[in-house]
Amino acid sequence: MASVRSVALKALSGPSWSYLVPRAQTLRVRAFTATMSPPSKAVVYEQHGPPDTVTRVIELPPVEVKENDVCVKMLAAPINPSDINRIEGVYPVRPQVPAVGGYEGVGEVHSVGSAVKGLSPGDWVIPSPPSSGTWQTYIVKDQDVWHKINKDSPMEYAATITVNPLTALKMLEEFVTLNSGDVIVQNGATSIVGQCIIQLAQYRGIHSINIIRDRAGSDEAREKLKNLGADEVFTESQLEVKNVKGLLGSLPEPALGFNCVGGNAASLVLKFLRQGGTMVTYGGMSKKPITVSTSSFIFKDLSLRGFWLQKWMGTDKAKECRSMIDYLLDRAREGKLKYEMELVPFNNFHSALDKALGKQGSQPKQVLTF
Amino acid sequence: MASVRSVALKALSGPSWSYLVPRAQTLRVRAFTATMSPPSKAVVYEQHGPPDTVTRVIELPPVEVKENDVCVKMLAAPINPSDINRIEGVYPVRPQVPAVGGYEGVGEVHSVGSAVKGLSPGDWVIPSPPSSGTWQTYIVKDQDVWHKINKDSPMEYAATITVNPLTALKMLEEFVTLNSGDVIVQNGATSIVGQCIIQLAQYRGIHSINIIRDRAGSDEAREKLKNLGADEVFTESQLEVKNVKGLLGSLPEPALGFNCVGGNAASLVLKFLRQGGTMVTYGGMSKKPITVSTSSFIFKDLSLRGFWLQKWMGTDKAKECRSMIDYLLDRAREGKLKYEMELVPFNNFHSALDKALGKQGSQPKQVLTF
Repeated sequence: MASVRSVALKALSGPSWSYLVPRAQTLRVRAFTATMSPPSKAVVYEQHGPPDTVTRVIELPPVEVKENDVCVKMLAAPINPSDINRIEGVYPVRPQVPAVGGYEGVGEVHSVGSAVKGLSPGDWVIPSPPSSGTWQTYIVKDQDVWHKINKDSPMEYAATITVNPLTALKMLEEFVTLNSGDVIVQNGATSIVGQCIIQLAQYRGIHSINIIRDRAGSDEAREKLKNLGADEVFTESQLEVKNVKGLLGSLPEPALGFNCVGGNAASLVLKFLRQGGTMVTYGGMSKKPITVSTSSFIFKDLSLRGFWLQKWMGTDKAKECRSMIDYLLDRAREGKLKYEMELVPFNNFHSALDKALGKQGSQPKQVLTF
Repeated sequence: MASVRSVALKALSGPSWSYLVPRAQTLRVRAFTATMSPPSKAVVYEQHGPPDTVTRVIELPPVEVKENDVCVKMLAAPINPSDINRIEGVYPVRPQVPAVGGYEGVGEVHSVGSAVKGLSPGDWVIPSPPSSGTWQTYIVKDQDVWHKINKDSPMEYAATITVNPLTALKMLEEFVTLNSGDVIVQNGATSIVGQCIIQLAQYRGIHSINIIRDRAGSDEAREKLKNLGADEVFTESQLEVKNVKGLLGSLPEPALGFNCVGGNAASLVLKFLRQGGTMVTYGGMSKKPITVSTSSFIFKDLSLRGFWLQKWMGTDKAKECRSMIDYLLDRAREGKLKYEMELVPFNNFHSALDKALGKQGSQPKQVLTF
């Protein structure tokens, strides 16, 4: 959520934002010649609704950098699907409006308050756990918000390391103890989380069975996933067989499955799972529910669970979260974790947003650069 | 499964069983004047199929009571739905045929082998974990099979204490730690497991929300469950409201739910569950699958599990199982655990079977007495 201070907004165009500017407070702060941030440009929405109509790029006045604060000049921040849902107001946690968009990103420390320890101008930091408001040029937040990362990290991976790769890593670790030689099965394998699961699993010697949609280009998608380390890639129609386990070859039956699609694609994950296996749902791209037979629970002893990164990170997991992020950035630096992104200058925010909204068909993840 | 010796069958009518009698072995045993059981009458099936056509009552010749064996004169054994499924061959574990029917029951020790410790003629015992073959007048099995119980136990409860009440108790203990004041929700509440859950929960100060079918007599069913200790009883149609939780009154939201129906009745259990709650499926009376939304897993963090007593007991749980059975028989003796049964002499097996098969509409559980 946008901090109170970052809502000291000055509208670029028209008077509609003027009521948001706490003039008296701003004047008082300035009277003490406190350290101030530079003015910032931000993507703000005043009400929930279609992101392309409710968001505006506006200029925010300088805010005070208090003794425990760090002022960060943002370098890059992605447009994730969940950012869009937050603006639409359909996400389970609705940011209070007016709010600045964005939830993760990477920046460089610009200035620090007098009591800040361990962070200096020039350091690279990410907000960790992430928090709303990364689509702006300068952010001032308490030092506890910021996690210092290795400056050798590729900037676009640092900007996107939490929402997708951390979901993949945490789901691989949270539900079932996997050892080298074990197998996981997933649908929606071409999603970024899906691609991260393939690569992070392979790094640990864990095999992956991957299910993708039937569509033009599925052969290319299969090749791409195999190049990332996928052991098997099947389209849904290839799995319309009596016994999907006959397709496992020499691989053991998977103990863990991931579902981000629902409907038939979820049923296919369940079919691959071994006795006592677990399926974790983290998305529902088909907008269809998950249907499970009674005997899957009783006689096959399957467990069905869900995972939501935002909730997990909200439960005092900052330390665990940060060491996992360091691990993931190490993999990205080694080239062992990769996915497609398109870097777009912040000034072109609305064209990046249109791409993220799917107006031009399937596009790589849009990452704003500042 | 029937032990090798109890398959020393002698047909009452016709020669079709004669190949099963290991004559040479029987003769050899008799030559040593070993301790022998009395002859036994048993319900046997030679092949899987409709229970009313494939079962026959036949006479079995005496079998040897070896040094570690106990010969038990059966007193009572129920006809459970799973017994019917085993005979039909539709149960996931298919008994090898020919087999003696029945899976639980209670008997009195008739004679013991020379090395048997802790069991004497006159003791009451149940096979624990239960095992196939209780529909016969005398059973000879290793002493480890038998659990000595309090002879003050009501015989019909001793005969039926494992399959239904132990399922109820174990499910209350296995998945979620419940404390006094907590709430569970269940469908199929009029089933015997459902009735046991109500009573065992109430004994621990745990409230129950109960869902029953819409049908003639649902008012009587509601009253009956309330008399057993149910806090709330709703028919499915009463729950066709926007917010079922508004019906909870002062009760906290349930953390644990039980489903033995599937379809809409399972969805209603899920609706009542609190954030992070667990639904355990142990039956599927509607023969409909369970359908769950993606957001139930991700944002409501629900877990869906299954429970199958036979599998749980198969994993070295004999000791835990027996102390739970003693606990349950204590409750039955106190009148804190009750359900309807009809006692039927073993000679009337086929009329009891017809009732158990539902040929005369809904009937109390049929318990054979020997």
